[in-house]
Amino acid sequence: MNEELLRICKTAKETRFLVEKLTEDEKNKALLHIADLLENRSEEIIAENKKDIDNGISKNMSKGLLDRLTLTKERISGISLGLRQVASLKDPIGEILDSYKADNGLNITKVRVPMGVIGIIYESRPNVTADAFSLTFKSGNVVILKGGSDAINSNKAIVRIIKDGLTDLNITSDAINLIESTQREVTLELMKQKEYIDLLIPRGGAGLIRSVVENSLIPVIETGTGNCHIFVDETADIKKTIPIIINAKTQRVGVCNAVESLVIHENIKDKLLPELAKELRARNVEIRGDSKVSEVIDCTLATEEDFATEYLDYIISMKVVSNVDEAIEHINKYTTHHSESIMTSDKDNANKFQKSIDAACVYVNTSTRFTDGFEFGLGAEIGISTQKLHARGPMGLNELTSYKYLIDSDYLFRK
Amino acid sequence: MNEELLRICKTAKETRFLVEKLTEDEKNKALLHIADLLENRSEEIIAENKKDIDNGISKNMSKGLLDRLTLTKERISGISLGLRQVASLKDPIGEILDSYKADNGLNITKVRVPMGVIGIIYESRPNVTADAFSLTFKSGNVVILKGGSDAINSNKAIVRIIKDGLTDLNITSDAINLIESTQREVTLELMKQKEYIDLLIPRGGAGLIRSVVENSLIPVIETGTGNCHIFVDETADIKKTIPIIINAKTQRVGVCNAVESLVIHENIKDKLLPELAKELRARNVEIRGDSKVSEVIDCTLATEEDFATEYLDYIISMKVVSNVDEAIEHINKYTTHHSESIMTSDKDNANKFQKSIDAACVYVNTSTRFTDGFEFGLGAEIGISTQKLHARGPMGLNELTSYKYLIDSDYLFRK
Repeated sequence: MNEELLRICKTAKETRFLVEKLTEDEKNKALLHIADLLENRSEEIIAENKKDIDNGISKNMSKGLLDRLTLTKERISGISLGLRQVASLKDPIGEILDSYKADNGLNITKVRVPMGVIGIIYESRPNVTADAFSLTFKSGNVVILKGGSDAINSNKAIVRIIKDGLTDLNITSDAINLIESTQREVTLELMKQKEYIDLLIPRGGAGLIRSVVENSLIPVIETGTGNCHIFVDETADIKKTIPIIINAKTQRVGVCNAVESLVIHENIKDKLLPELAKELRARNVEIRGDSKVSEVIDCTLATEEDFATEYLDYIISMKVVSNVDEAIEHINKYTTHHSESIMTSDKDNANKFQKSIDAACVYVNTSTRFTDGFEFGLGAEIGISTQKLHARGPMGLNELTSYKYLIDSDYLFRK
Repeated sequence: MNEELLRICKTAKETRFLVEKLTEDEKNKALLHIADLLENRSEEIIAENKKDIDNGISKNMSKGLLDRLTLTKERISGISLGLRQVASLKDPIGEILDSYKADNGLNITKVRVPMGVIGIIYESRPNVTADAFSLTFKSGNVVILKGGSDAINSNKAIVRIIKDGLTDLNITSDAINLIESTQREVTLELMKQKEYIDLLIPRGGAGLIRSVVENSLIPVIETGTGNCHIFVDETADIKKTIPIIINAKTQRVGVCNAVESLVIHENIKDKLLPELAKELRARNVEIRGDSKVSEVIDCTLATEEDFATEYLDYIISMKVVSNVDEAIEHINKYTTHHSESIMTSDKDNANKFQKSIDAACVYVNTSTRFTDGFEFGLGAEIGISTQKLHARGPMGLNELTSYKYLIDSDYLFRK
């Protein structure tokens, strides 16, 4: 096993008990102090970030990726603001979830505890480094970070400053651990460290997530793939529906809660499509429709693959159906279980849709773009879970915890 | 892909929506009817079970395994009683877990929903077939069962009767699915069917569970491995402690919540050990102690491997420590995160132990044998989770569910 990885795993497992025992006050002071320190030492971060950007340019990294990689004074202030927000959230650890006397005489208390050690594998987005630390730390966990190799210098600088901030307050700097090795084999080895790591969260594109699910022996929470649909029922208010579709498709095209596919009731297509197509084209959105869509507006013909694709781009697929049942069947076939929405004035169809769609968030007359920890009032989020085990939808502090049962009695044994 | 497996997977995925929509009344009537049917047709089950037993005998199956395999009229009545108990439990589906208006104006409701399709891989214990059905069915799930091949005839008979019972009440008989193929490759293929199965629960020995964790692409809940400890602190009430140890070790040696290892404070060893050893030996329990134990009583010398072993047998390991911290360190090193207990009159040590031990159930002055869904008041259990993701400790109906967010607004989009 890679020496650095083994050292970090062992350290993390030993350190988790120290982090679990920190009081809310200790954790908040540390988060606020680190927020200041990141701003005060922003030039140090920016200098290291410059190295990553230069490497990226020489490797012909795309504009989008370079933008995600870039840190500025303002963006660092944004990161610090995030830490301060997490400091303001309620500490979940120690919460009594249930407490009762069982029929057999046992006093049973179910109490919220940290997961222990959380591994996070992510792409070259240095802002995730501080975000992931703040959420895992506030929820009493030790974090092991494996960021994209293109951001390694930025990540090292951020982690160094966080460690300094913890040390300033006499808190173990091993609460945060960065794997500096950039070899792919080390990432694969990391996914096998079930003995040391309690939970693994991949943050990134579909390829990264698939690789983690296929290789990990550690329990995984899948996040972020969003092939989101909006179904426009025959009774939808067209005037109000078009701005929602435009918002869900174009406000930010690269995010998991953006809409990728429209399902349209055949009785509304003639009224909806011409106006909608005009608005979409004004924003350079390409339309890929089925044959019935193409009877009403000009468009590329959609393939099966289109319906299965999360574009994350200025493209939208469209399909015409003859009723809500057909819409549900189509969406359940292609959903990635993230966010789905119905536009309708028919309460029965709204209920049916919400009951039958197999997704974390099922909306009525609302943009899918709202699936987000802040928008849901969780205060922050580590990602959007698209699986059903443990957490579903936006994951805040509570979703980074487990529980245990504390039981006492006066020397009872089982009859 | 194996044809039978593919057919079952596809059927299960289509059927889950039908099962999710069943009312509490429909589910309860079905469970009660099936309970009667299993008793009425017990001769049919016993005849098929006889084939399995004959095959087992000709394969020189051990007495213990043969006993687990055997069904009698009484045992079938026990199975039926289990189904009736599950019918009496509250239906978890549809429970509103949270409901609020977010700052952005969204109406958000978090509602409990089934997992969908649950796979259960288990050994040759035909009683698990009916148990697993009753719990997954009551929690609105479709189940795919892969039982041990040595019980295949018994399982087929039980599943046939359950399917008949469902059909009698006009409920889809595809709510329960048994993989009849007994090839190991099919079990491995089953573990890859992430597209069709939402959760996989292995029930059985450590080897089975390891194989599932290593091979599954489906989210898994690990159950049942219990290397449970009792720590006897220096202030323990010896008179009351000895019966607890005897109970935890000998009431049933083959169960996961039996105690396997004793950790003893050095200041109490001279008073505790002679009397305890006498009681254990009277019940044919072999003692494997460290050098300090062997200074007080005759015993085999314990190895590192002993401390790491879940004996499930009339053997107990013992280690002497100098304080509660050393006890915690030792237990956290060897725990399988199931159930651990401290015997003490010192409240501070009790608190420290409960806070620091990393296990699902941490007891004070109580036998570890209580870790059980019925004892905890859950009404039933599908197993004891030893992981931290999703469920920890005894798993009842709620632990077989997920949730989803239902959101509505008056055509809101994100600003």
